[in-house]
Amino acid sequence: MTSPGNANFPVVGMIGGGQLARMAHQAGIPLGIRFKLLADTPQDSAAQVVSDVVLGDYRDLDTLRRFAEGCDVITFDHEHVPTEHLRALQADGVAVRPGPDALVNAQDKGVMRARLDSIGVPCPRHRIVADPADVTAFAEEGAGYPVVLKTVRGGYDGKGVWVVGDEEEAKAPFLAGVPVLAEEKVDFVRELAANVVRSPSGQAVAYPVVESVQENGVCAEVTAPAPDLDPALSDEAQQLALRIAGELDITGHLAVELFQTRDGRILVNELAMRPHNSGHWSQDGAVTSQFENHLRAVLDLPLGDPRPRAKWTVMVNVLGGDYPDMYHAFLHCMARDPGLRIHMYGKDVKPGRKVGHVNVFGDDLDDVRERARHAAAYLRGTITE
Amino acid sequence: MTSPGNANFPVVGMIGGGQLARMAHQAGIPLGIRFKLLADTPQDSAAQVVSDVVLGDYRDLDTLRRFAEGCDVITFDHEHVPTEHLRALQADGVAVRPGPDALVNAQDKGVMRARLDSIGVPCPRHRIVADPADVTAFAEEGAGYPVVLKTVRGGYDGKGVWVVGDEEEAKAPFLAGVPVLAEEKVDFVRELAANVVRSPSGQAVAYPVVESVQENGVCAEVTAPAPDLDPALSDEAQQLALRIAGELDITGHLAVELFQTRDGRILVNELAMRPHNSGHWSQDGAVTSQFENHLRAVLDLPLGDPRPRAKWTVMVNVLGGDYPDMYHAFLHCMARDPGLRIHMYGKDVKPGRKVGHVNVFGDDLDDVRERARHAAAYLRGTITE
Repeated sequence: MTSPGNANFPVVGMIGGGQLARMAHQAGIPLGIRFKLLADTPQDSAAQVVSDVVLGDYRDLDTLRRFAEGCDVITFDHEHVPTEHLRALQADGVAVRPGPDALVNAQDKGVMRARLDSIGVPCPRHRIVADPADVTAFAEEGAGYPVVLKTVRGGYDGKGVWVVGDEEEAKAPFLAGVPVLAEEKVDFVRELAANVVRSPSGQAVAYPVVESVQENGVCAEVTAPAPDLDPALSDEAQQLALRIAGELDITGHLAVELFQTRDGRILVNELAMRPHNSGHWSQDGAVTSQFENHLRAVLDLPLGDPRPRAKWTVMVNVLGGDYPDMYHAFLHCMARDPGLRIHMYGKDVKPGRKVGHVNVFGDDLDDVRERARHAAAYLRGTITE
Repeated sequence: MTSPGNANFPVVGMIGGGQLARMAHQAGIPLGIRFKLLADTPQDSAAQVVSDVVLGDYRDLDTLRRFAEGCDVITFDHEHVPTEHLRALQADGVAVRPGPDALVNAQDKGVMRARLDSIGVPCPRHRIVADPADVTAFAEEGAGYPVVLKTVRGGYDGKGVWVVGDEEEAKAPFLAGVPVLAEEKVDFVRELAANVVRSPSGQAVAYPVVESVQENGVCAEVTAPAPDLDPALSDEAQQLALRIAGELDITGHLAVELFQTRDGRILVNELAMRPHNSGHWSQDGAVTSQFENHLRAVLDLPLGDPRPRAKWTVMVNVLGGDYPDMYHAFLHCMARDPGLRIHMYGKDVKPGRKVGHVNVFGDDLDDVRERARHAAAYLRGTITE
């Protein structure tokens, strides 16, 4: 189904049918590029809206190889594709962006910590631990209990993460028999995220540093730019993210999740090498969204202006609530606030699941925040009027 | 392929696979609605990017009926669906928006002029003419030669329009044997467009009045808002468009193309009842784009804020030039101007064909205009650097 009209425009293949792929497709339409999706089911968030969908298992190398055949570049909606399969694709000559040597740092928290240590990036105190007794030993080395334990692979949105208060509580993470990383529980004043985009030829852009608020391990709210952030610390965070992107040879979007400590330092919490929840504000709040810049980057196209278009943009996630019909809540929100930018993912409503987000921009932070929070709470069903 | 995740979200069926449907689909993704397309071929601009495409002939009633079955509302990328088919669909109980009684005013210029006359809307002097001698009679009634002749149906982008200087030249339009409308050639200082959106429940919003520049009968450039427009005349144009939308019971987007005369009046040139080239600036220049508001309107959802986000937004069409590879020009333009918003349609490059547009926004009109014009000219191949 190649069009003669854009036959000389490249094909981006995205692995994973979630909302990030959905919004990347949306951002790719004006670019005139062709977008191909590897999804699990036709009901996947992105599969609902993309024309060229291949159904298959991203853990199967043959499936990946067949999918890659028609693509000029492969990129990702998630980081769950086995690293060895990506190396095999790369050996086949497929352009995989970010490449496996970069992506492994977003796939394996043990690898990531070791790599960041090697280039002197400030991180929470951490080490791989063998058993509950070793967790206590780690605590006694200086961090003390509570300790944060993470499975090195497979965790996201609070899954695969435990905060344990003693050796007894430290037993649970080891039951699965996978490597466990211990980290100090950082005494932070808030969480920040530094989002940058880097292309294979080395061009990079930095979005304004944002403040993010997590609830139960899930991103709840993002304010762009981070309010009352010392310009020196903002610069430091952007420079740090650009340095990580360069040192790790990351292509595409990189989100660096940061802790701002009580004593005024920043420490790296997590890395994500794909469009990220902390960058959703950019769809309505920046000249070029993270989704468009991710696509431009993996295609080695010149990057777009990442600067904000409004004084403040606030993003609040819409989580699934107790009742499945969101359409009527949707009508109410639209009628109440014509300036609201709603982004729905077409997903089943399940309690706590990310099913959409709202963006609001303007000059008055309190007003912008109240509007975004109200809409998200109403869509979830937490409040009614 | 219905998703359980948005099963209670409505299905919009759009007839026609052009760039307007492509951009409407793009605007519908965040709304979480389901979008179904009736296109001619898989290579159609919109068919390249929409998941749910039916291929078929919009002139065939059975095809239309089958397409309408899975849709909550039918709307349009173009106005070429036969009016009687739309009446038949409506008799079947299908929600057709805009409805045939409204849409006929965008399909038939003779009907439109009579209807606008009946509600006292200022138009150029006009009447249906029978033959070249009748054109001369029309000229002698007051307008004089040159006279503008238009086939009442089927014209667009300058096709089906003649400017004739005498009775000899007036012969050509009658050769096809279709009804011909004669209009005075208005002595205008510029062309304006008033874009409004109206929902079935009667809610309406008005975009800022824009200035449009045509070249060879094709829209070339739009500036939003229209520079140096007397606020009273701007209000008059918006009120006029809102009144036409109400009186004609139009649902969805209405573009009213206007002449601003040398003596300070406005006269209605054309009506379009769908997203329109004079509203493309709104994708990057308004809080809510014309495409999103058209979808909201045909679904009777509350409408979004139509206000501008920048002091000036300029849209310049990218027309096909002499060489078919636009991708390299595209790279150049992106590298030169990271703030450029490019919208490509995935269409074959043919000389003079609309294949995309660029939007640029900012505070300095001269700068914004220069950037948009340069990019469009470079993409067309008119200039190289």
